[in-house]
Amino acid sequence: MPRSDRILMGPGPCNPYPEVVEAMIRPMLGHLDPEFVALLDETCDRLRQVFRTTNPLTLPLSGTGSAGMEAAFVNVVRPGDVAVVGVNGVFGERMAEVASRAGAEVVRVEADWGEPIDPERLLAAHPSPAVIAVVHAETSTGVRNDVESLGAGKGDALLLVDCVTSLAGIPVEVDGWGIDIAYSGTQKCLGVPPGLAPITVSERARERLVERPQSWYLDLNLLGRYTGSATGPRTYHHTAPISMVFALHAGLGAVLGEGLEDSWHRHAECGRLLQEGLHARGLRLFAKAGHRLPELTTVWVPDGIDEAKARRCLLERHGIEIGGGLGAFAGKVWRIGLMGHTARPRNVALFLAALDELLDT
Amino acid sequence: MPRSDRILMGPGPCNPYPEVVEAMIRPMLGHLDPEFVALLDETCDRLRQVFRTTNPLTLPLSGTGSAGMEAAFVNVVRPGDVAVVGVNGVFGERMAEVASRAGAEVVRVEADWGEPIDPERLLAAHPSPAVIAVVHAETSTGVRNDVESLGAGKGDALLLVDCVTSLAGIPVEVDGWGIDIAYSGTQKCLGVPPGLAPITVSERARERLVERPQSWYLDLNLLGRYTGSATGPRTYHHTAPISMVFALHAGLGAVLGEGLEDSWHRHAECGRLLQEGLHARGLRLFAKAGHRLPELTTVWVPDGIDEAKARRCLLERHGIEIGGGLGAFAGKVWRIGLMGHTARPRNVALFLAALDELLDT
Repeated sequence: MPRSDRILMGPGPCNPYPEVVEAMIRPMLGHLDPEFVALLDETCDRLRQVFRTTNPLTLPLSGTGSAGMEAAFVNVVRPGDVAVVGVNGVFGERMAEVASRAGAEVVRVEADWGEPIDPERLLAAHPSPAVIAVVHAETSTGVRNDVESLGAGKGDALLLVDCVTSLAGIPVEVDGWGIDIAYSGTQKCLGVPPGLAPITVSERARERLVERPQSWYLDLNLLGRYTGSATGPRTYHHTAPISMVFALHAGLGAVLGEGLEDSWHRHAECGRLLQEGLHARGLRLFAKAGHRLPELTTVWVPDGIDEAKARRCLLERHGIEIGGGLGAFAGKVWRIGLMGHTARPRNVALFLAALDELLDT
Repeated sequence: MPRSDRILMGPGPCNPYPEVVEAMIRPMLGHLDPEFVALLDETCDRLRQVFRTTNPLTLPLSGTGSAGMEAAFVNVVRPGDVAVVGVNGVFGERMAEVASRAGAEVVRVEADWGEPIDPERLLAAHPSPAVIAVVHAETSTGVRNDVESLGAGKGDALLLVDCVTSLAGIPVEVDGWGIDIAYSGTQKCLGVPPGLAPITVSERARERLVERPQSWYLDLNLLGRYTGSATGPRTYHHTAPISMVFALHAGLGAVLGEGLEDSWHRHAECGRLLQEGLHARGLRLFAKAGHRLPELTTVWVPDGIDEAKARRCLLERHGIEIGGGLGAFAGKVWRIGLMGHTARPRNVALFLAALDELLDT
């Protein structure tokens, strides 16, 4: 029966906000209870504020961020449609795979891990794609891909953006940047346990939704009728994960109570403090300068350090979790998250102190 | 901010077990933390006990019961496969729809709502189906469909059973009855909030899994590598809903601590008390005698009662939620659940007392 009290500085989940923990154990309600329906509506309103959108079709999907990715593709891709997908890490790879399983002809635009993808290459990759898709914040590399310029140049394509690790951590402007479909996860900068995938769909994309997508569970036409964002009466689809919606509602309340821009600033400050601290100790950052995420820092493991042993030591001595590298960078890179409630200067101070212990021994 | 303390006697969710509520707010762990991985393994072991199976591929899917349904079909159905589907309520209809979206040629075997499906008709519906699928406990009608005899007669077909409302409420014998794929939901007789879908897959079915199903999120090949039930090393797939897994682990602990058969007996006793009480008051039960679920009782609304007003009165005066009828029986039938922690004689006594108030006024 685990009771260990971790400081979660990996690539997610983060430590949830205290308000969120409290909300998880509110007395259970039915999914059609008037009190729950009102709370769900308010949750969708709060999601619109955090996504910076007025999209009516904005709701929490009953799955994790990867369910958001799948929903994004299966609801707009028709067999043979071209999907241009940016690939510079694990989650770009996943997008390409999910798009392909949805029946798309995938055109990959690659960049080295640690490098951002040039938006001009995404825009020029195909003359008439149905979808242009990119990961905003690559959790596998700590790189921020440029999104803002894609909206202006997308033409007739839908712009589909993975905001799992960016939402509430760095600026995301769904309406301002012309994003058609954005999805996220709850366990990153929203400070909520994993389990839901917020998603928002522009009116332009809603007009192109596949009428009967291959997934019934993630069918946005049907889901929109339950959350009440669509026209017409509210219709039962599936039983919403009540406690998780309570948690998300509270996490969004924490973010908006602080102020969304203040949340961005706090993540930015913590990331800066960590990255400066690592640099001051002679460690080399992995992600390209100018495209480093504050909420997820990647750093080369210093020479002479057994990285797995070091992570185990952090976990066992201090209860600090950090992440290892993925793919070709397993054993070579650490991924250090400062997301949601974990994004506090005290956690940066603690981590740097623990790192000093490691480097001294 | 809802704080209303409901007695949840609808078709689910039920009130969670106290142990479950406590478990929800255990300190968050990472999805690769050794303590979490051990707890996940133990959760899968407990699921095997509750499903009565030794199937290695047994795990909680990161979605609600309907995600379990979708996973069951998309992982075994190949384009053009025949799926024989029993349809005598909303969830049988949903199965037919999900099977069709997975590419199956669906052969429907129907029975009237309130009646069970004759297993012989399911077995005789097609000479060589890939799948025979049925809902064990129809939540829309309160009917139990026979499953036991399907296993013996299934031939080369895979037997796929929806156990959302049956698991831990009435006997389910995955190995004993020859079920190849069974899935459930957490918010019914397991006494856990909604959000996960336990699923179990026989070795026979595992050999026939689609190599690259249309859903990446619900791909059982990939999921089995994370939960460690498959051969080979444990591989990250997606971030598990940590708090919900804590909750499921605790709910299964409550069920197994009581004893699975004692849980069946408690549900049976509560259902009997309720159905006798309704009969004694002159109300007519909806589901066919001999096939009535104890955990979900359907009853015709008495003449002269405004059913929506009556349900509102129960909710507002006593905080009791019951469900209305679905489809053609909306406004005509009530659905009264006694599931999980809600399945207590005191809740039956309370409901019958509240019903007496309603009938007197």
